[in-house]
This record gives sequence, C-alpha cells and structure tokens, in this order.
Amino acid sequence: MKSTILSRRDLDFLLYEWLRVEELTSRERFAEHSRETFDGVLDLCEQVAERYFAPHNKLSDAHEPQFDGTTVTVIPEVKEAIDAFAKADLLGMSFDAELGGAQLPVTVAQAGFAWISAANTSSSGYVMLTIANANLIAKFGTPAQIDTYVRPMLAGRFTGTMALSETQAGSSLADITTRAEPQDDGSYRLTGSKMWISGAEHELSENIINLVLAKIPGGPAGTKGISLFIVPKFLVGADGSVGRRNDVAISGLNHKMGQRGITNTVLNFDGAVGYLVGEPHRGLAYMFHMMNEARLGVGMGAVALGYTGYLKSLQYARERPQGRLVKDPASPQVPIIEHADVKRMLLAQKAYVEGALGLALYCAKLADEEDTALLDILTPIAKSWPSQWCLEANSLAIQVHGGYGYTREYDVEQHYRDNRLNPIHEGTHGIQSLDLLGRKVTQNGGASLAALGERIAATVAAAGDDPLAAQLDAAWQRLVTVTAGMFASGDVEAAMANSAVYLEAFGHIVIAWIWLEQYLACAGNDGDFYAGKRQAARFFFRYELPKTAAQLDLLESLDRTTLDMEDAWF
Amino acid sequence: MKSTILSRRDLDFLLYEWLRVEELTSRERFAEHSRETFDGVLDLCEQVAERYFAPHNKLSDAHEPQFDGTTVTVIPEVKEAIDAFAKADLLGMSFDAELGGAQLPVTVAQAGFAWISAANTSSSGYVMLTIANANLIAKFGTPAQIDTYVRPMLAGRFTGTMALSETQAGSSLADITTRAEPQDDGSYRLTGSKMWISGAEHELSENIINLVLAKIPGGPAGTKGISLFIVPKFLVGADGSVGRRNDVAISGLNHKMGQRGITNTVLNFDGAVGYLVGEPHRGLAYMFHMMNEARLGVGMGAVALGYTGYLKSLQYARERPQGRLVKDPASPQVPIIEHADVKRMLLAQKAYVEGALGLALYCAKLADEEDTALLDILTPIAKSWPSQWCLEANSLAIQVHGGYGYTREYDVEQHYRDNRLNPIHEGTHGIQSLDLLGRKVTQNGGASLAALGERIAATVAAAGDDPLAAQLDAAWQRLVTVTAGMFASGDVEAAMANSAVYLEAFGHIVIAWIWLEQYLACAGNDGDFYAGKRQAARFFFRYELPKTAAQLDLLESLDRTTLDMEDAWF
Repeated sequence: MKSTILSRRDLDFLLYEWLRVEELTSRERFAEHSRETFDGVLDLCEQVAERYFAPHNKLSDAHEPQFDGTTVTVIPEVKEAIDAFAKADLLGMSFDAELGGAQLPVTVAQAGFAWISAANTSSSGYVMLTIANANLIAKFGTPAQIDTYVRPMLAGRFTGTMALSETQAGSSLADITTRAEPQDDGSYRLTGSKMWISGAEHELSENIINLVLAKIPGGPAGTKGISLFIVPKFLVGADGSVGRRNDVAISGLNHKMGQRGITNTVLNFDGAVGYLVGEPHRGLAYMFHMMNEARLGVGMGAVALGYTGYLKSLQYARERPQGRLVKDPASPQVPIIEHADVKRMLLAQKAYVEGALGLALYCAKLADEEDTALLDILTPIAKSWPSQWCLEANSLAIQVHGGYGYTREYDVEQHYRDNRLNPIHEGTHGIQSLDLLGRKVTQNGGASLAALGERIAATVAAAGDDPLAAQLDAAWQRLVTVTAGMFASGDVEAAMANSAVYLEAFGHIVIAWIWLEQYLACAGNDGDFYAGKRQAARFFFRYELPKTAAQLDLLESLDRTTLDMEDAWF
Repeated sequence: MKSTILSRRDLDFLLYEWLRVEELTSRERFAEHSRETFDGVLDLCEQVAERYFAPHNKLSDAHEPQFDGTTVTVIPEVKEAIDAFAKADLLGMSFDAELGGAQLPVTVAQAGFAWISAANTSSSGYVMLTIANANLIAKFGTPAQIDTYVRPMLAGRFTGTMALSETQAGSSLADITTRAEPQDDGSYRLTGSKMWISGAEHELSENIINLVLAKIPGGPAGTKGISLFIVPKFLVGADGSVGRRNDVAISGLNHKMGQRGITNTVLNFDGAVGYLVGEPHRGLAYMFHMMNEARLGVGMGAVALGYTGYLKSLQYARERPQGRLVKDPASPQVPIIEHADVKRMLLAQKAYVEGALGLALYCAKLADEEDTALLDILTPIAKSWPSQWCLEANSLAIQVHGGYGYTREYDVEQHYRDNRLNPIHEGTHGIQSLDLLGRKVTQNGGASLAALGERIAATVAAAGDDPLAAQLDAAWQRLVTVTAGMFASGDVEAAMANSAVYLEAFGHIVIAWIWLEQYLACAGNDGDFYAGKRQAARFFFRYELPKTAAQLDLLESLDRTTLDMEDAWF
C-alpha cells in the first residue's frame, strides 16, 4: 500500500532527477553528506510521520487543547510525537554541526519536514516554531543565549514561539505597544499583550521560549523602534536549571476553524523578565530574517496539506464504484476515476500540488545556494501560491469524495480547514502582493526580476521548439511589459490597487516555469511516472496558464474600479 | 444598526425596481396579493430570522445533535425556531389557499426564506425539507395522502425528509437497492438503507414523513424501475392520530464539516410500512420535480450564506483600524475598508452575492410565470454558480477579517464551512455540468438555449451603446459559436470531457447578463445605492467576465488532456 501522506517517488524525482541536490555536497557546508545521508533523513521523516504524527491528526482536531484557568491540557499523543521527532535528532536537521545539528541542506530538511507537516499540521507546528526560534537566536543571539536557549530547544527539552502580533497590530507591526523597560542588570521588563501566539502555553516541554517584539521607551516611532526579546516561560539559571515562573500568562485560548491541535492564545506580559537579542531597535530586521523562512515554511505547509489530500482523493477515486460510462444499467459500476470530470479534478490537484512542491524545493535550494536576489522575489509567490491553489486542491479532494468528503469520518475536510489558515498568517495575500509589487519587483534596480527572467529564459531555451516553451516565453514577456507599463504610468496608486491580481498572475507564470522545468527533467525517460508528469505539465499550460491573459489585461489598463468605489456605495 | 443577515434595500431593488414582482398580481393565482402583502411577508421573515434563527446559529454548530442509541437530542432553540416559523404561518407561503397556504409567488416566498436561511442554514433545513416534501405530496399524492400528511406538515406538527441516496448510490440513483414489496392492503413493506438523510431523526415534531425512493420487485432495471413512497416514522391512523412506530431506525449520525445543526443519518428500513405516491416506476420523475426546486433552493441557500458573510465582513472592515495610507507612523490608523485590496475583496463579494441573488430571484419569477424552457436551462447555473462563487465570497469574508475570521469567535468561518456542502448535494458540480451540456443545451432542438439568447439579446439592445452591452453580446455570441462547434465535431466524448469548464463559463456569462439587467434597472436614479450597483456591475465585467475567454478557448479546442490521462499515470 502506497503512503497517502506524500509521494517519495515524486520527492526523489524533484530532489535528485530535477534539482540534483546531491551536487550541493560540493559546498563546504554539506561536504560530509551524500545521497545516502539525504535518503536516510527522508526515510526517517517518513517513518516518524507515519508512526507518530499521522495517527492522532483527527484526534487532536476533535479534542482541542483545553484551558481550565491554570493549565492547558493537550492530548498525550502530541507530546509523544514531538518527543519522537526530537529523539530521532530531527530538530537539528539543518543546524550547524557545532550546535549538534546535522548541517543538512535546507532543501533536504524541508523535504523531510514536509512528511511531518502533511501527516499532522498542528503537531508539526510546535516543532516548526521551535526550530524557527532556535534558528533566530542561533543567528543573532550571544553565545550565552545560544547555550541557554538554543541547545535545550534542539535537544527537545524546550519549545519556542514567535510573538509579533497584538490585537490592534496584525499586518501593521508599527503599531505594537508592548514595551520593554531596561533594568540595571541589563535585562528588561516587558509589559503588554500579544495575540495569535501558537504554542505559547502547554505542558509539552520543560520550558517555552517566547521571542517577543517590543518597544524600548524613547526609541524611534513606528517599525524603526522595535526590538526583539527572549522571554522564557520559566527563568533559566546560569547552570541551565529551569527556575521560577516568569510573569507571562494566558487568559484563554483562541478557537480556530482548523489547525485545532496547536494552542493559540493571547499572551500577557506583566513586567515579565526579557533579554534583548542583538541590538536595540533592530528587532524587526531580525524577525524578518525568520519571517522569510517562515513564509517559505507556510508555503511548504500548504503544499503538504494539498499533497496528502490529493493522494487520499486519488485512492478514493480508484476504490469507489459509482455510475457507468455507457448507459446500460446492467453493466457494473466503474471506479469514479474513469469519469472524465473526476480525472480532471485529480489532474488539477496533481498540477497544483506537484507544481507547488517543485517551487517550494526550488526556493529551499536557492537558500542553500545563498542566491538571495532570486529567493527574495520568489518568496511571496512561494508563500501565497500554495496557500491559494493547494487549498483549492483540498476543495477538489472533497469534491472527488462527494458527500463522504464533507464528513469528519474522512480526512479531507480537515485538510481543507487546516489549509485555510495559510493565506492569512505570516503576511496575508494582500501583504504578499504589496511585498512583491511594491518592493521585490523593483528592488536593486529590478535585479531580482531580471534574475528570474534569466532563469526562465534558460528554461525556455532548453525546451527548444516545444510549444510549451513559446507559451511560457510569451506569458513572461507580457508580464515584464505590463510591469514596466504599470510603473511607467506614474500612477502608483492605480498600479498598486490590483497588486493581488498581479501576485496571482505572477504566481501562475512562475508555476508554469516550474512545470516546464519538471517536464524537461523527464527527458529520455519512459514509463507511467514520467507520462503523468508530462500530462500534468500540459494540463497546467492548457487549463491554468491561459488564465493570466485576462489578469494582465486588467493590470495593463490600470483599472480603477476598486479605487473609485466609495465606502458609502457598499 | 443595519441587519447583517441580508439587505432589505437590495431585496426591494431586485423585487420591485428590477423584477417588478407586483405585476405578478395580474395573474389569477396571485390576484389577492399586493405590494403590501409582499412587504408584510418580507418583514415577518426578517423578524423571525433575527429573533429565532440567528441567535442559535453558532450554538447549534458547537452543539451538534447527539444520538444515545435511542434518541436524538437537538438543542431546544432549534424547536423554538421552527415552531415560531410555523406559528407565523410561513410554512404555507407559496402553497394553495385550499391547503391553507398564502398562495404567494415563489419569488416572494424565496426572498422571504432567504432571511431564514442566511440567519441559520442548519435550522432552516428542517423547514425547507418539510416544505419540499409537502409540495411533492400535494402535487402527486392522493387527496387522502394530502389530508394525512400535507396538512399536518403545513400546520407545523409533522416534518419531512427526502430519502434518495444510498451508500452505494449517490450520483447514480439507478443503483439503489431499497425494495418495496406490495401488500394485500395496497401498502408496501420497504427494506433497505438510505444515506445522507437530513432531518431524518429527532424529537422536534410529532412525526417525520420520509419520502423514499425504492424499487418494486419485477419492475424495469435502472432509473425506470424506481417508485416513490411515503414512509412515516409513526403510522398515522384514519382519524389523523399518530400511532405505532414504523420499522424505520437509525444506527448513528453523520458528522459533517458544516451544517452541523441539522441531523444527517443513515436511515434503515426493516420491512417498514410505506405508501406509494402516484404510479409505480414513476418515482424518479416525481422526485425530479422536487429536485429541480431543491436545486434552486440550494442555490439560494448558497447566496444567503455568501450574502450574510459579505455584510459581516463589510461591517468589520468599517470598524477595524489597521495600517495607514501614508507611511507616517504618527498618523492614526485607518479603517481597513480604505485599503484598495480590502475594497477589492468587498467589491468582489458584492458582485458575487448580489449577482447570484439576482439570478436566484429571476429563476423564482420564471417558476411563477411557468416559463419552463428558460428555467430548465438556468437551473444548473442557479444551483452551481452560487455554490462556487458565494463560497468564494465566504472565503473573502474570512480574508477581510484576517486572523479573527479564522476563529469561531466570529461568524464567517462557519458560513464558509456551511457553504462548502452546496457544491455537493442535490447533484454535484459535475452532475450539473452534465445536465447543462448533455441535456439542457440541446433539449427541444435547442429551444431553451435560444430562449436564453433572446432574453440576453433584449438586454443588450436595451443597454444601447453602453460598452458593457457590447462586451456581453460578444461573450454570448462566442459561447453560442463554441457550443455549436463542440456538437458539430461529432466527438461527444471530447465535447463532454470539459463539461465542468463549460458550466463555469456559461455561469459567468449568465451572471454578467444579470448584472447588466441590474445596471439598467438603476437608470435615472442617483445616490449611493445605485452608484454601488453600477460599480459592482462594472467590477463583474472587468474582473470576472474576461475569465471566460480562456475557458472558451479550451472548450473550442476540444482539449483531450484529461481524457488522455491514464489511471496508472497518477
């Protein structure tokens, strides 16, 4: 029985046949690695996902964390899973060897983590936040902070959170009001309240390390006055012992549509002890380092949910008899995969999730190669595109199941609910679109856009006279022309008004490019797997890429319909 | 404070300024009515919705019906609401006066019921099924059956269900196996099991009247051998008294993603007493009479959920401060409605839900006018388009709310979950698309398609040289040409393979027509309301209608990508 969590065959294709990640071992950082160690990690992640994360996915959805006014209770299977992940030494997959990490390429670590995330997105959240937190302190913290917080996190003793938002400051972080008063001993006292903090309160670990954005009184206004602090749940002694409770408390839990298995809370600081990370007033810059990784992580999380839904609906379509191809009631019913419309829904899912997985891994490889210019411009796409289209894949997975898919007896409705968070957190679609059009497209004199254009041109050239090449080339050239026209107009307001449409068109063209890359990587190979890849590529070029024409027309016209709409007219 | 359930202002515009429903009173059936009686019913429905249905919407989602092995318990607020609906004499809104009904136009009854459905889609389901059931028996039952079942249902004493599907027969009703053995006394004994039966077991009414499809042994194979039976939960005596329990039982409840407040079950018949409705073997024809109404009802239900979500996100956008239009942290934050992308999301919702509401009411008026040819071809659109796009509206309503929209503390996530059922039940999208392209477009020599074309041409003519007219005309002509080409090809398999894409393109063109109709109905009027209508029409023509070009290209090419995809390639 094939796994319905993810497809190892596809991961192998993407990692080795397309991206050739084993070539990364020529870089000094990864010199100790080989295809064998990569495969070992992928095997291990699959096993941990199957054995510890998948079995309680529905259970933790049905039995959310409970808060009795003092303690938050999480079903025990969650702790077993995150402990198993830690014991398998997976927390440090991509960390430096000197911290006890495996120093694996991000590409391989992300591919491995996708198994965990597809198996149980909520429980994987505790782990992912811990890794992100540890990563940030490892990069910007002092050696003492690393010893005190990072090492216990990587050992699985502590977990971590990211505390950015406040009730009045979500997308607008300039408006946070949590303040940090400096103390004589060099520490700070934090007062304020944070919102949407995942993993902020539970009994799953010895200690919870919160990374908190706050303002030091007297600093600059807006985002330039934000600093970053370590605020542990329990203070840690010089000898590493976990001491008294810090003045950090929750007043209740948020109740979400999906991702119900991970705690999400308001976190109140009442003169809590905090420790500055790096320099004062540079907190947002540090946090953005983490946030860019988190955005890629959100994208991969969306892919993982889309992918597992696809595999489950594929299995269902092969097993479920319903209807017949000829109108003869005496003939037996056929499996629904034989109906053209069901095939279309499966092929669309395949095109979405394998395209998105390709982009996610491509971006991870750019991180390994430290190709910042290209990674910068692809990050808003890698975050938003899977959040939109792998959610659509989950909707199609429900549709393939019919009424059964709408019930909690099957898995796919939960994937759909879980995935609906991804277009919201770590910067909404709207925020991603402003980042792309208002920043990334023009940054460094358009260097990122040009870098992407070069890659696409190389792919088009490699595809020769294949009609897909001409189609992608035309779409990309049109996008470049429309982009230039929007900025040349001088009407910035109108140019930015449809940034979300721009994000979607840009995303579809990028995924078409990723599909052409995968198509080319099939060259010289026969067999079902490669035939499926080629057909999914064709599907994307025939059903999806043409959608961008109408979007680019709209953008080109600098349409003012939404700008001209007045509040009173609604 | 304006209602956030529905907009009475918009209903008044659609009913009176656009559809001129008061003109229906010139028909004999509605001669006793007037604008005043119509308004009275709309007022009443709004009041009942606000007072009895809206307040327990979240409660019945959080506290689903519970089955203890014997009894199904539903929170008491549900019974209070459906009793209030009955006491207000709303069950008989569109029924004949001789049955105690108000003999209102379907258009007005649907508009009124939309309040109930928007306020609480689950609780409204008990009522809607009862009305549909009573309607069917009233049309095809004997006078005795009408007295025994319809009158108590319209009085609010009995409730009704529709029992079509079985676990192995959902979209494929030909495959039902429930059998009905004739008895000497003229009754039947039913044996078998039905699936997905909403409202099938509860303590909300004195009796539950199940309308059940079953096969009489020896009848024709497939759908031609299906008959329709009344199978009450309790047998009813000649004097109307409720007697012994029939052999109808449930073994458990289904647990759904949304619409959790209404029971949904497997219903088992173990030699249950049933009474034939109409003639043997004609059950599916009778049921389709109901099903066509039910499909329009599902469409209206999807509209109602989309509409209430839109109003709630609009209110939120006006009240929620976040971010600023200029990059000056010293300036105060603005309500998010001032951000272009939020305005776009609100305008898109407005265009979807007001367009869909227009179509739903237009179809209801066709029912009142008994214009079957046109209603036939619009029914799959009126069912599927709101199910897809008012669900998308609900997703946008969540997005406008940001993280808050993803929590159960706000309403919109429930609307999204509730609405996700609508593309599935009463014929999935795929089934609707086969109905449209495989039946409705060609029926009676293309008479329905031609009738629609005439209406669209009249609207285009009335719009004169407005650019929207030319745009709609071009889209419609292209659709007609592409349709003709698909059938002329002789490749039926390829023509039908993309029926779902055809359904979507057809739907968008129909809604563009409905928007041009609304746009024209604004003529001569100034003020915010009309300015908003015109802007929403423009939005639909600029952002939505152009999407059909790529779809029609695909259809014209008779693309075989999905047909050529093989099972083994997935």
